[in-house]
Amino acid sequence: MLCQLTASEARRQIAEGLITSQQLVQACLDRIAETDESIGAWVHVDAEGALSQAREMDDLRRKGRTLGPLHGVPVGLKDIFDVKGLATECGSPARKGTIAEIDCRVTANLRQAGAVVMGKTVTTEFAFLNPADTGNPHNPAHSPGGSSSGSAAAVAAGHVPLAIGSQTNGSTIRPASFCGIFGYKPTRGVISRAGVLQTSVTLDQVGVFGRSLEDVSLLADALSGYDPHDPASLARPSPCASAGLRRQPPVEPVFAWLDLSFNDKMSSDARDGINEILSGLGSRVERIEAPKSVNALVDYQKIVHEYEIARHLADDFEHHWDVISETLKPVVERGRSYSDEQYAEALSMVAGAENYFEEFFHDYDAIIAPSAAGEAPLKTDGTGDPVFCTVWTTAGLPAVNLPLLSGSTGLPIGVQLIGSGEHDDRLMTTAQWMVNSLAAAE
Amino acid sequence: MLCQLTASEARRQIAEGLITSQQLVQACLDRIAETDESIGAWVHVDAEGALSQAREMDDLRRKGRTLGPLHGVPVGLKDIFDVKGLATECGSPARKGTIAEIDCRVTANLRQAGAVVMGKTVTTEFAFLNPADTGNPHNPAHSPGGSSSGSAAAVAAGHVPLAIGSQTNGSTIRPASFCGIFGYKPTRGVISRAGVLQTSVTLDQVGVFGRSLEDVSLLADALSGYDPHDPASLARPSPCASAGLRRQPPVEPVFAWLDLSFNDKMSSDARDGINEILSGLGSRVERIEAPKSVNALVDYQKIVHEYEIARHLADDFEHHWDVISETLKPVVERGRSYSDEQYAEALSMVAGAENYFEEFFHDYDAIIAPSAAGEAPLKTDGTGDPVFCTVWTTAGLPAVNLPLLSGSTGLPIGVQLIGSGEHDDRLMTTAQWMVNSLAAAE
Repeated sequence: MLCQLTASEARRQIAEGLITSQQLVQACLDRIAETDESIGAWVHVDAEGALSQAREMDDLRRKGRTLGPLHGVPVGLKDIFDVKGLATECGSPARKGTIAEIDCRVTANLRQAGAVVMGKTVTTEFAFLNPADTGNPHNPAHSPGGSSSGSAAAVAAGHVPLAIGSQTNGSTIRPASFCGIFGYKPTRGVISRAGVLQTSVTLDQVGVFGRSLEDVSLLADALSGYDPHDPASLARPSPCASAGLRRQPPVEPVFAWLDLSFNDKMSSDARDGINEILSGLGSRVERIEAPKSVNALVDYQKIVHEYEIARHLADDFEHHWDVISETLKPVVERGRSYSDEQYAEALSMVAGAENYFEEFFHDYDAIIAPSAAGEAPLKTDGTGDPVFCTVWTTAGLPAVNLPLLSGSTGLPIGVQLIGSGEHDDRLMTTAQWMVNSLAAAE
Repeated sequence: MLCQLTASEARRQIAEGLITSQQLVQACLDRIAETDESIGAWVHVDAEGALSQAREMDDLRRKGRTLGPLHGVPVGLKDIFDVKGLATECGSPARKGTIAEIDCRVTANLRQAGAVVMGKTVTTEFAFLNPADTGNPHNPAHSPGGSSSGSAAAVAAGHVPLAIGSQTNGSTIRPASFCGIFGYKPTRGVISRAGVLQTSVTLDQVGVFGRSLEDVSLLADALSGYDPHDPASLARPSPCASAGLRRQPPVEPVFAWLDLSFNDKMSSDARDGINEILSGLGSRVERIEAPKSVNALVDYQKIVHEYEIARHLADDFEHHWDVISETLKPVVERGRSYSDEQYAEALSMVAGAENYFEEFFHDYDAIIAPSAAGEAPLKTDGTGDPVFCTVWTTAGLPAVNLPLLSGSTGLPIGVQLIGSGEHDDRLMTTAQWMVNSLAAAE
C-alpha cells in the first residue's frame, strides 16, 4: 500500500520515477477519507494545496532540478505550527480561525526539503493535558496520547509517513509509544520554535513521528539548524541523526537504567516487557539509583511549565477564560501563584540537570527507560501520564521511542532511549544497534 | 601558507585534526595585520570573537560532535550583512555605529555550518558606485571593483578563504574578475536577504567569493534555503551547486555568446583573451545576436534600481543628505523622478527577461560573457562598469566568474558563465568542464 510506505522509501521511488508525488499524496488523501471519521487525527486536510505542491515537486523532478531530502513526501503538522494561509487553532476555541500570515521556521524547512504540507493535525488544548477527541488507530476507544495526538495517530493510521509534534513534557515520545510508531525529540535547540505556539520558552521542544529510525532522522535533520529568532536555538552545527544511523558503534554500547521514584507507576505488562529487554542486554545495562536532584526535576518542571504557560498565554486567558477547560484553569491559577523566587530556583535546578547529564554520558551511550506507563489509556481517562519523559525533556536531552513491545490487550508499548545532549547522532547509532540486536535475538 | 588554503582543504585538515581552526584563524589574522594597511579590505576585524569561535569549533571536534560543512573556516562578510553585536555601517557615515541586534539569515547559516565570522569587509557607499578606499591586492593603486570591494580583496589577499558579498548589478562578478578569484552569484531567491541592507527588493542578490569552484559552491550551498522573511526566497528545494561539481556533463556542453550593444566597451586585451577561449571551444559556441528586449534591460534595470533605492533608503536620505556622496545624490534624484508607470513598465520587462531566458537554456548549457570591461581600473577612476553583469543579474540567473585571463599590465581578467535559473548545479558542471578542458589544452 502506497500510504504505508516509509518516507525514505517513498522519496526513493519518487526520485527514481517509480511513483509520483501526486500518486502518493492522493493515496494518503484516500486513506484519510476512509478512516479519519473514526480516528479524528486532522483539524484541516489541505487536499487542494497538497496536490498542487505535489504537482510542483513532480514538475521540478521532470525538469532535472535538484531534489530535496523529502522531495514529494507528505507531512502533517500539529496545529500549533504556523503554515501560511492556514489557521493555527492550538486546540482551543480561543484561537478559532486565526490564519497564519507567514510560515514558521519548521514549515519553511519542510518546503525547502521538498516536503508536501498535508494539513494540520489535532492537538490537545494549547498542547497541554486536556484531551482532544482523537482515537488511537489501534483501537479508537483508546487515546493516541497527547499533546501531539493527531500527528502520532496520522502516522500510525497510514495518513502520512511523517508528522511533526512538540514536547514540553512527554508530548512526542508518549503518543509515539501509544500508537506503535517511532518518535524522536532532538536535543533542545536543534529545531527552531519560531512561529510555533509558545507554552514554555524553557521547556518547549519540537518532536517528529515516522515509521522507521531512518525516517525520523531524515525529518529531524531537514528541520534542524540555527535560527536567531528562537532564543534557545544553538548557534553551531547541528548533530546529524542520519549520519549516526550510517555508523556502526565502535564498541558494543553500554546502557544505563535509572531507578526513579515514579517508576512504580509502570503497568505490569510494560514492566515485564522492559525487563525482558534489559535481561537480553545483560551486562550491557547498568542499574543506577537516580540521585535526589534528578527525581526532584519532576516538581521543578511543573513550576517552570505552569509559571510560563500562565504568562505566555496571558492574552488568551484574559480574553477567553470562558472557553478554557477545567483541566487547564487550575494549572493557570497555580502558575500565577508561584513567586518569582520559586520560579528562579526551579530554573536553576533545570540548568543543573543539564550539567549532571553532561558528565553522565561519559560512561554510558544511552539511558533506557519506559516511554509511558504502559498501553494507551481509554480516551475517557485522558492522554496518559507524561512523567516518564519529564526528566529527559527538562534536561533537553535527545530521546527516541522504539515501538518494540505490546501490552496485555495487544496495544503497542514503546521503549525510550535517551542520549547525550547534541550527540543525537550517537543516540541513533545506539538505537539502531539495539533494534538490530533484539531482532537478531528473536 | 595556511592563510592561502582553499576552504575545502582547510575544512578537511581541520576535520582530520591536521590543523586546528585556531591555527587557521590566527594565520589569517596575522596576514591581515601584515597587509591590510595597504589594501584596506576590512571595516572591522573581530579578532577576539573569531578566535573564540575557532576555539569552540575545535572543542566540538574534540568532543566528537557533528562537524559543519565549513567547520572552523573563517569567512568575511560585506558590511551590509547583520552580525549580532557588530556594527553594520553600509559604507556610509549615515549608518555609523549601528549595532545589529540579531544575526541576518546568512550569518545564521554560517554559524550553523560551523564557519567562523572573521569580521566585516568594506563596501562602497550603500553597495552602490561611490568607491571605498580599498585597493586591489594585485596592485593597490587599482580598484578591487565594487560594491563588494573588501570581500573580493580579502579573499585575493589571503585574509580569509571565503567572503560574502552582494550583487544588485555587477557587485560580485566584477570584483571577482578584478581580483582574480572565483565569484558566484546563485539564482535569485536561493540565498535569503533577510537582515541585509535593502537597496532594491527586485534586484538585490547575495554572492560569494572563494579560491576554487568547490569553495564557492560549498559556501553558497551552506547559505541557501527558503526563508519566509525574504519575499523573493524560493519555497522549494535549492539547487545544490556542489552536487553539480561532482557530476560529469552527460554530453559535451554547448555555449552561447550573445552579441550585446555594450560589448564594444570591452578593452582589447579582454577581447583577445575571450576570443582565444571562444576559438578553443570551436563549434561548441554559438554566436547569437541578442534581441532588442535583452539589450533594453540595461535601461530598465536602471529605472528599477534607482526607483527602489530612492525609496528603500528614504530615511537615510531624509536625515543624512549632507553625508551622501555626489555620486549617489543624482541617482536618488532620478529615482524619485520616475513615474509609477515607468517603474511598472520596467518591472514587467524584468519579468519578461526571466521568461525569455527560461526558453533560451533549452538549447544551451551556459552563456559565456565578459565579467567586466577588462583589467581593474585605477582607484581614482572608480570601481569599473557593471554593465557586463546587468542583463544576467536582472534576469536573476546564476553566474560565476572564472579567473582565467590576465591583461596587458598583468592584472587578472575573468570570464563569466551564466546558467539557467535554479539550475546552478548544471552551471557548475559546465564551468568545471570548461576549466578542465582549457587546462588540458595548455
